[in-house]
Amino acid sequence: MEKLQRILKQITPTDKQVEAEAQKHIDSLSKPPGSLGVLETIARRIAGITGKVKPDLPKKTAILMAGDHGVVAEGVSAYPQEVTPQMVLNFLSGGAAMNVLARHAGAELIIVDVGVATDLPEHPLLRRRKVAYGTANMAQGPAMTREQAVAALEVGIEIAEECIKKGAGLLGTGEMGIGNTTPSAAITAFYSRRPAAAVCGRGTGADDARLQLKIKVVEQAIAVNRPQDDDALDVLAKLGGLEIAGMAGVMLAAAAYKVPVLIDGFISGAAALIAARLQPPATEYMLASHLSEEPGHAIILEMLGLAPFLRMNMRLGEGTGAALGMNMVDAALKIVHEMATFTSAGVSGALA
Amino acid sequence: MEKLQRILKQITPTDKQVEAEAQKHIDSLSKPPGSLGVLETIARRIAGITGKVKPDLPKKTAILMAGDHGVVAEGVSAYPQEVTPQMVLNFLSGGAAMNVLARHAGAELIIVDVGVATDLPEHPLLRRRKVAYGTANMAQGPAMTREQAVAALEVGIEIAEECIKKGAGLLGTGEMGIGNTTPSAAITAFYSRRPAAAVCGRGTGADDARLQLKIKVVEQAIAVNRPQDDDALDVLAKLGGLEIAGMAGVMLAAAAYKVPVLIDGFISGAAALIAARLQPPATEYMLASHLSEEPGHAIILEMLGLAPFLRMNMRLGEGTGAALGMNMVDAALKIVHEMATFTSAGVSGALA
Repeated sequence: MEKLQRILKQITPTDKQVEAEAQKHIDSLSKPPGSLGVLETIARRIAGITGKVKPDLPKKTAILMAGDHGVVAEGVSAYPQEVTPQMVLNFLSGGAAMNVLARHAGAELIIVDVGVATDLPEHPLLRRRKVAYGTANMAQGPAMTREQAVAALEVGIEIAEECIKKGAGLLGTGEMGIGNTTPSAAITAFYSRRPAAAVCGRGTGADDARLQLKIKVVEQAIAVNRPQDDDALDVLAKLGGLEIAGMAGVMLAAAAYKVPVLIDGFISGAAALIAARLQPPATEYMLASHLSEEPGHAIILEMLGLAPFLRMNMRLGEGTGAALGMNMVDAALKIVHEMATFTSAGVSGALA
Repeated sequence: MEKLQRILKQITPTDKQVEAEAQKHIDSLSKPPGSLGVLETIARRIAGITGKVKPDLPKKTAILMAGDHGVVAEGVSAYPQEVTPQMVLNFLSGGAAMNVLARHAGAELIIVDVGVATDLPEHPLLRRRKVAYGTANMAQGPAMTREQAVAALEVGIEIAEECIKKGAGLLGTGEMGIGNTTPSAAITAFYSRRPAAAVCGRGTGADDARLQLKIKVVEQAIAVNRPQDDDALDVLAKLGGLEIAGMAGVMLAAAAYKVPVLIDGFISGAAALIAARLQPPATEYMLASHLSEEPGHAIILEMLGLAPFLRMNMRLGEGTGAALGMNMVDAALKIVHEMATFTSAGVSGALA
């Protein structure tokens, strides 16, 4: 709890003066003002985050948090729980979608077992930081104790601190955990005051019957647990997951150390909601990436005031959308460093 | 005309059998079916285009066509015409946004003078294939003669043939030409039967008065020229531009040689409309990239049945959106080559 409190205190708003200076530089480049749209926004925001008008091209690290969910006992997922550790092994062998897209982005990939229900072998890419063997079934009571939620947040903080110490200048967040769209839907429904049916999607591929069941389970979890709106730790503990807490910890540490962090899809978004409730200026350090097919994701991003710029119709998680987004961040920063100005290129400005 | 006719005859539909085989492979990979969305679509379509279930990672070439427009005499652009050759020199020096983003994409960039109003110096990156010193003012009569339109199309075909002969497996299209959103709006309004006001945007930054003028000029150009709906060469000659024709030529050659080609923004989209009218199966070889801020672009992509996957709020042209899209194409093809299958990764499939 002490580590979490220290990180929360360390988070301050981004530097709006540097943002303004960065925009001034961007406006001097040989293109109509504003014509690079989101690339300009990203470059300006990272200037404000890092305090540098021309931020360095960052070393990129993707952090993938894995955890299991007691709520799978209700039958909410199309895949069996054993897939969580099987997919962790797939990540460690380099064969999952996230491995391919992290390599493509030039990002290091770190896998964290923060709560997988079975033991996992030692591996250089795996951080074994298990807080519990999965969460409890939130349809029957709290998913985690408050202490477990804090411990998982602090795992995320420590992993992010390790990456930042090793030079990471851009973090990506991702997850693996069979059943985890259900707690994400519960968090989203609770904070948005939207009906469960508006935030529940098919996850890895639920059919109509399973989707209806999932909606009922989300309603039941909120009704049974009655989380406190003004206490994000309470919401996280009762409706969340260990990997959701871990990702929220990564996001908070990113904000504390002034490092931009990419949000992935729906589950990463639910973690961002928690981080934003724990410390609102943390959102200033977040960048959206893609818009997931999960219907709750758009609701989350709107609440956070973040605009996704990739429309890939993806719904895989793992951090795959964030990995694709890293390429756009690099493009934005290269624009700042490499483009000629109107003056240096000898190009006339706009007509009066 | 002979070259154009030959290329048009060479265009056949893509291979749907190979597409189906590619989807079967994609469905065997260790992820829920369909969960990689657009990446799966791109990989499947390129399989159909190239005839290979697992298409090679392509050598990428971006072709930037430059041309001027007589219609600038009407005052439709916020920038003076001299900016066209100034920007060509900027491209040749490597300082424009497109240079940065082509380098970022790992793409070769070729600049083509197909109709700039002034002479340009020799340069290894510049193909001097000027068909005319800009178009005539389409508000007063045809922008080009039919012969000029064919010549510019054939310049595009020849440039694409040169690139494909040198190994290009993915082409990007882009342009530079002060005033060229106006002919693009005219082509779009004509083919979509939408009012000029629905397809005209602010281009490089027109204010309200200039936007109103632009709308009137588009209406006038259509009224004065009365192009023939069933004759795409007539539409191109009367309402188009030399660089629009050049890009359409590139797209047709790409289809003829079974090479995927990325559409950029509004002007590239107008060229795609012309290519599609000249030979409908050509659209099967086109991939959309970003959705431009220009309102006519969404109308074009809908007519072509292409879904843009980047929402960067860009409106620069040059091929910048297509360059960003190349990264997603590479990502899609790496997924096909590098991901483990459910079987090879030892991951359980969905529950019955």
